[in-house]
Amino acid sequence: MIIVMKQNAPLTAVENLETELNNRGFKVSRSQGESKVVLGLIGDTFKLDERDFLGNEWVEKVMRVQEPYKRASRSFHPQNSIIDVSGVKVGGKKLVVMAGPCSIETPEQIHTVAQAVKNSGASLLRGGAFKPRTSPYSFQGLREKGLDMLIEAAKDVQLPVVTELMSADKIGTFLEKKVDLIQIGARNMQNFDLLRAVGRLNVPVLLKRGLSATIDEWLMSAEYIMSEGNQNVILCERGIRTFEKATRNTLDLSAVTVVKRRSHLPVIVDPSHATGHRWMVEDMAMAAIAAGADGIMCEVHNDPEHAWCDGAESITPETFDHLMGRLRQLAPIVGREL
Amino acid sequence: MIIVMKQNAPLTAVENLETELNNRGFKVSRSQGESKVVLGLIGDTFKLDERDFLGNEWVEKVMRVQEPYKRASRSFHPQNSIIDVSGVKVGGKKLVVMAGPCSIETPEQIHTVAQAVKNSGASLLRGGAFKPRTSPYSFQGLREKGLDMLIEAAKDVQLPVVTELMSADKIGTFLEKKVDLIQIGARNMQNFDLLRAVGRLNVPVLLKRGLSATIDEWLMSAEYIMSEGNQNVILCERGIRTFEKATRNTLDLSAVTVVKRRSHLPVIVDPSHATGHRWMVEDMAMAAIAAGADGIMCEVHNDPEHAWCDGAESITPETFDHLMGRLRQLAPIVGREL
Amino acid sequence: MIIVMKQNAPLTAVENLETELNNRGFKVSRSQGESKVVLGLIGDTFKLDERDFLGNEWVEKVMRVQEPYKRASRSFHPQNSIIDVSGVKVGGKKLVVMAGPCSIETPEQIHTVAQAVKNSGASLLRGGAFKPRTSPYSFQGLREKGLDMLIEAAKDVQLPVVTELMSADKIGTFLEKKVDLIQIGARNMQNFDLLRAVGRLNVPVLLKRGLSATIDEWLMSAEYIMSEGNQNVILCERGIRTFEKATRNTLDLSAVTVVKRRSHLPVIVDPSHATGHRWMVEDMAMAAIAAGADGIMCEVHNDPEHAWCDGAESITPETFDHLMGRLRQLAPIVGREL
Amino acid sequence: MIIVMKQNAPLTAVENLETELNNRGFKVSRSQGESKVVLGLIGDTFKLDERDFLGNEWVEKVMRVQEPYKRASRSFHPQNSIIDVSGVKVGGKKLVVMAGPCSIETPEQIHTVAQAVKNSGASLLRGGAFKPRTSPYSFQGLREKGLDMLIEAAKDVQLPVVTELMSADKIGTFLEKKVDLIQIGARNMQNFDLLRAVGRLNVPVLLKRGLSATIDEWLMSAEYIMSEGNQNVILCERGIRTFEKATRNTLDLSAVTVVKRRSHLPVIVDPSHATGHRWMVEDMAMAAIAAGADGIMCEVHNDPEHAWCDGAESITPETFDHLMGRLRQLAPIVGREL
Repeated sequence: MIIVMKQNAPLTAVENLETELNNRGFKVSRSQGESKVVLGLIGDTFKLDERDFLGNEWVEKVMRVQEPYKRASRSFHPQNSIIDVSGVKVGGKKLVVMAGPCSIETPEQIHTVAQAVKNSGASLLRGGAFKPRTSPYSFQGLREKGLDMLIEAAKDVQLPVVTELMSADKIGTFLEKKVDLIQIGARNMQNFDLLRAVGRLNVPVLLKRGLSATIDEWLMSAEYIMSEGNQNVILCERGIRTFEKATRNTLDLSAVTVVKRRSHLPVIVDPSHATGHRWMVEDMAMAAIAAGADGIMCEVHNDPEHAWCDGAESITPETFDHLMGRLRQLAPIVGREL
Repeated sequence: MIIVMKQNAPLTAVENLETELNNRGFKVSRSQGESKVVLGLIGDTFKLDERDFLGNEWVEKVMRVQEPYKRASRSFHPQNSIIDVSGVKVGGKKLVVMAGPCSIETPEQIHTVAQAVKNSGASLLRGGAFKPRTSPYSFQGLREKGLDMLIEAAKDVQLPVVTELMSADKIGTFLEKKVDLIQIGARNMQNFDLLRAVGRLNVPVLLKRGLSATIDEWLMSAEYIMSEGNQNVILCERGIRTFEKATRNTLDLSAVTVVKRRSHLPVIVDPSHATGHRWMVEDMAMAAIAAGADGIMCEVHNDPEHAWCDGAESITPETFDHLMGRLRQLAPIVGREL
Repeated sequence: MIIVMKQNAPLTAVENLETELNNRGFKVSRSQGESKVVLGLIGDTFKLDERDFLGNEWVEKVMRVQEPYKRASRSFHPQNSIIDVSGVKVGGKKLVVMAGPCSIETPEQIHTVAQAVKNSGASLLRGGAFKPRTSPYSFQGLREKGLDMLIEAAKDVQLPVVTELMSADKIGTFLEKKVDLIQIGARNMQNFDLLRAVGRLNVPVLLKRGLSATIDEWLMSAEYIMSEGNQNVILCERGIRTFEKATRNTLDLSAVTVVKRRSHLPVIVDPSHATGHRWMVEDMAMAAIAAGADGIMCEVHNDPEHAWCDGAESITPETFDHLMGRLRQLAPIVGREL
Repeated sequence: MIIVMKQNAPLTAVENLETELNNRGFKVSRSQGESKVVLGLIGDTFKLDERDFLGNEWVEKVMRVQEPYKRASRSFHPQNSIIDVSGVKVGGKKLVVMAGPCSIETPEQIHTVAQAVKNSGASLLRGGAFKPRTSPYSFQGLREKGLDMLIEAAKDVQLPVVTELMSADKIGTFLEKKVDLIQIGARNMQNFDLLRAVGRLNVPVLLKRGLSATIDEWLMSAEYIMSEGNQNVILCERGIRTFEKATRNTLDLSAVTVVKRRSHLPVIVDPSHATGHRWMVEDMAMAAIAAGADGIMCEVHNDPEHAWCDGAESITPETFDHLMGRLRQLAPIVGREL
C-alpha cells in the first residue's frame, strides 16, 4: 500500500503515521519527492482498508498495490482450483452445466425437467425451493417441501443438486437433506453472517455476484467464506445493474477473464438471470464458454409459459438440448470438453 | 396493469390469457387496436409482477399502472406517517438528527460523543456494534459489548439509540437491551428473511436504501416489513452506486422528493456514507433538508483521525455543532423546526 | 403508443387530448377501465416521443409499443443488411476483422502493422489520424498527415481503411482521400449535426455506441444517418460505462443479440476499447463472435509498449495472428466463415 | 504521478523507463520497497495520462497525484473565478438564475416568458433555438429564426441570453447576433473540436456535464476551452445517467461540492433536465443552492402542457415566482444574495 502525504504535511504528521504503522506491524519506506512525501507499506497489507488512512488529515491519497484478499487470490495459489461437487469436478477441463427450473413447482414438473436435462448432458440439477422475491406478494417457493421434491428427482436421475440458501437457520435442513452445492444468491452476496456460516461447512458454495458488486468485492465475499475454512467456492456471474434496460441485467463477461487472472477459483455464468429473455440465453451461453467460463447455469422449464417464476427467461428442454449440442462443438476450440 | 399482445397473436391465445386472468381474480377489459390487442387488468394488480406475463410467447409488452406496493403507498395512506421512536417523532414538523460514531470503540469514546451530540441538539444517538465490512479482516464491531456501551451512554444523556441489526439471530439481544430503532443496512435491504423478522416486531425500523436499489425496490422492502405487521418504517437514503468515483457513493437527493410523492413514510438522509468525505457532510446535510428530508443521520467522532472505522467521513463534535446551527436557520424556510 | 390517463381525469381533458392527437394525424381508440381511461394511438407513432405527453397534467403514464425508429428497424426490413465497404461485405456469412493501430505514428509503423494484419487475414485496416482525447495535452493524432500515411499503407497491402471523423469540416478531406468506411466515435454518437452530415454521403459509416447510450438511443443515431439517405450503417459495440473499474468499460455482449433482434444492421465488437487490457482482447473477441457479432475491430501495434496511444490495450501482430487462427476455428460453429 | 513496477521487473526495465521519463522532461525518484520498485515523477505531470504507462509490461499500477488539469484547477488559482456575462456576475456573492423555455416557439411565447422571469428576478433568459433531440423526427428547434426571437425578447426585457451551440459552423451567427453566454450541451461535452472552437472566442461558455462524465472529465473539457484562451467557463450540473429510472437522470449535487474544492470555476445546477418532472424542480433548486451552487438554470413555460419540448419538466411563471421567493429566503443562510 502506498500513502501519499499532502504537500504541506508537517514532519511530525509523517512520523506519527509511521509510528502508528510500525505499531500495527508494518515496515514503512519513506520517500521524499520534490514536494510530497510518499510512504510505502511492507507487510500483510491485504488486511488493510485504504479508507482507514483517509481519516488522517495529512494524507492525500492511498493506493492499494496488493489485492485485499489472500485465500481467493491467484498470487497465493497459482494453480486453478478444482471443486468437487459430489463427484462432479468444477474448474477442470470438463465444462459443467447446471440446469433446471427457476422454482420447483410439483413432483411431476421437477421430475420431467430433471430427466430432460440429464438426457441432454447436464451435470447438476438446479431448482429453487426458497425464492428471494422483490415483492412480498410474489410466490416465495415451496420451501422444505420443494427441497424434498428436488432431492427426490435428482436421486432418480442421479445428478447432484444446487439450490439457494437464504438464511442461516435453514443450514440444518440443507445438511440433513444433503444438498450438494449451496447457492448464495446475488442479493445475499454481502450478507456477511450468512457467508461466515457457510464458511464453516464442508459443502461447496456457489457464490453469485451481487447486482452492483465490483469484482474485488465479489472475491472479498469468497474470502469471507474461505477465511472460515471452506475453500470450496465456485463463482457465478449473473449480470450487473447498469443504465441499460433492454436486458434484465447487463451480463459482464469480462468479469470471467478478470476473475481468471485474479483468482484460482472456478467461475461459471448464468445467462438466464443476466438477460431475462429466453431468446438471448443460447447466444450468451455460447459467449460465456468462448470467454473462458468453467460452465453455465441455465433455467430450463417444460412449460415456460406457465412457469410460476421467471418463465420469460426459461428455455424448453428442446432448446436446452440444442444448446448442449452447440456447446459440445465449441468446447474443444477453447480447450475444454463437455 | 396493461398487457399488449403481439400483432400476430391468435384469438385463442388472447382468450386463454383472459381466462387465466379471470381465474386469478382479475377482470379484463379487452381493446382491439388497429393491429394489436390490449388487455387492461382490473383488480389488486399490486400483487402482480410484470415479468409473470412475459413468459407468454404472445405477449409483447406489459406496463404497470398501479404501484407494486400498498401499505407503503401514499395512494392508500394519503397523510404523512409519523413514527414514534421512544418519544421522538419522525416525519412530523420537527426535523430529526441521528448522530454518533460509525462504530462504538470504548465507553469513553461513546460517552464523549453522546454528550456532545446531545448538547448540540441531536435527537437520537447512533453507533455501530455489529459492523458489515467488505473484508473479513476489517474490524467487525464490538458486538454485544459494544451494544452495552451504546445503551449505557444513551441512558446517561437520555437519547434513544439506533443501531444496525445484521442477522435475525440477534433480535433477542436487541429486544432485551431495548434498542429504540433497529437499522437494516444497505447490504441487507433485500435480505428478505431479515425484513420479515423485523416486520414481526413492535420496534421501529430504519431501512437504508441498497446500493443499487431502485426507489420502488426500496419501497417494496418497506412493504415486506409492513406486510408482517410492523408499520413503523423510516427510510434512509445513503447514496447509490454509479460510475462516479469522486465520492464514495452518489447521493440521490431526488429520491427524497420521489419517496415523498409515492409514499407516506418518513425519509431521512445519511450524508456521511453517501459522500465518504467529511468536508462534504455539511453541504449535503443542508441540501438534504432543503430537498424536504425529515432529518439526517450523521457520523460524529471525537477523534476522526483515529476512528476504528470510516474516520474519513466522520465530522468532529465542533463541526457537528456548527452544522446544527445552520440547520436550525434553514428549518423554518422549508416549513420545519429543529 | 398507449396513454393512461389519471384516475380523476375529467372527460374534457380526455377529449381535448383525443382532438389534439387526431389533429396530429393519429387515430385514437379509447378504452374505459374500471377507474382509468386508456388511449391507444394508431398511426406512425415511431415519430412520437413519450415525454411529449407527460407535460399534460392528466396523463399518468405513457408506454411506447412501436419502436421509435423505422429505417433501422427489423420490423420494416426483416432481412439482414449487408454493407459493402469497397468490396468487403459486412453482415453476411463471412466475418469481418478490422485491425490496426490506435493512432498512426510513422509511415514505417503503419506499414508494418498493415502488412502484418493483412497477412493474418484482416479485411480492413484501421488507424486513427484525428484522435478524440480526454486531455487537451494528450497527443491528438497526426491529422491530415496521418490520414495520408494510412491511405498509402492500405493501398500497398490492398485493404480498405476505416478511420474516425471528428468534425464535419473534415468531410471534404475524407472524401478526397477516399476513406472507405467513416467511423463516428462513441463521444460523437449524439453529435446530431455530424450524424446528419455523414447521412448525406455515399460512404458507409461505422457508428460506435456511446459510453452511456441505451441500445435504442444507438439505433436512433443510426436512424439520424439513415433518415438523410445513407443506409450503409454498421454498428460497433465498444463497452459501456458502469460502476465496475476492473475494465476500462464494461463490454455489453448482450447488445449484439438485442441489436440483431431489433435491427437489420450489421454489428461488430471492439474488444480493445471495451476492456482496456491487451490480455483480455482474445477472450472477448472469441466471446463476441460466439455471441453472433458480424466481426470485430481490434487494436494491433508492432511495439505496444511505445505506442503513442492506448498501448495497454493493443496486441502484437503475433497475438493477432493467434487470435485469427482461433476465430477461424470458431466461425463454422456459429455458422460463419473467416 | 507514482508508478509501481511489477515484483519481478528487471533492473533494466526500470532503468529504461526512467531514461524515457527523463527524456520527456521529468525527474524521477526511485524507491525500492521490499519487493517492488516505486517511481515518483516530478514535473508537470498534469499533462500525462496514467494509461500511457500501462502499455509497459513491467508496470503494475499507476496513481495520479496531481490533477490532470491546470487552468481549471483550484491549486493553480485559489480564488473563486467570477465570470462576467454582459454585466451579470456569475460565481460571486449574488446567485444567478437563468430561466426560460426549453425551446423558443413563437415571438409571443418567448416574450411572455421573458417578461415573467424578468419580473420574478431572473438574471438571464434561456431558450433553445438549436435543439439536440434523440430522434430525427422530433422538433429540432426554430434555429436562426428562433435565435432572432430570443434576442429580440431579451432586448425588450433587458436580460442577457444563454442558448445552445451544437456545431462550430454556427459560431459566426452566434457572434453576429451577440449571444451573451454560449451553452455547450451535455451530449457535446466531449465534442473536442467544438470545445476548442469556443475556446478561441471571447464569449463566456456554459459547459454542461455529460450524461456519464466523471467530474474530472468534465473539468478536462473545461480545460480544453481554457487551454485555447477563453477562461470564462461556467459549469452546469444537470444529472447523470444511473440505473434509477424514477427520474430522467440522477441529479448529482455532490458534484457541486467536489467542483468547488477542485476548481475555481462557478457551477450552477439545472434541476429541470436532471429530474424531468416539474413537481421536483422546486425541491431540487432549493437543494442545489443549499449545497453551495452559484445559481440555477430552470425551464419556465407559460403553457407547459402544450410546450413543443420538455413540457413535463417546465414550470409555470407562477411556480417560478414562488420558487424565487423561497430562494430569496434561503440565500442569506448560505451566505449569498438573490
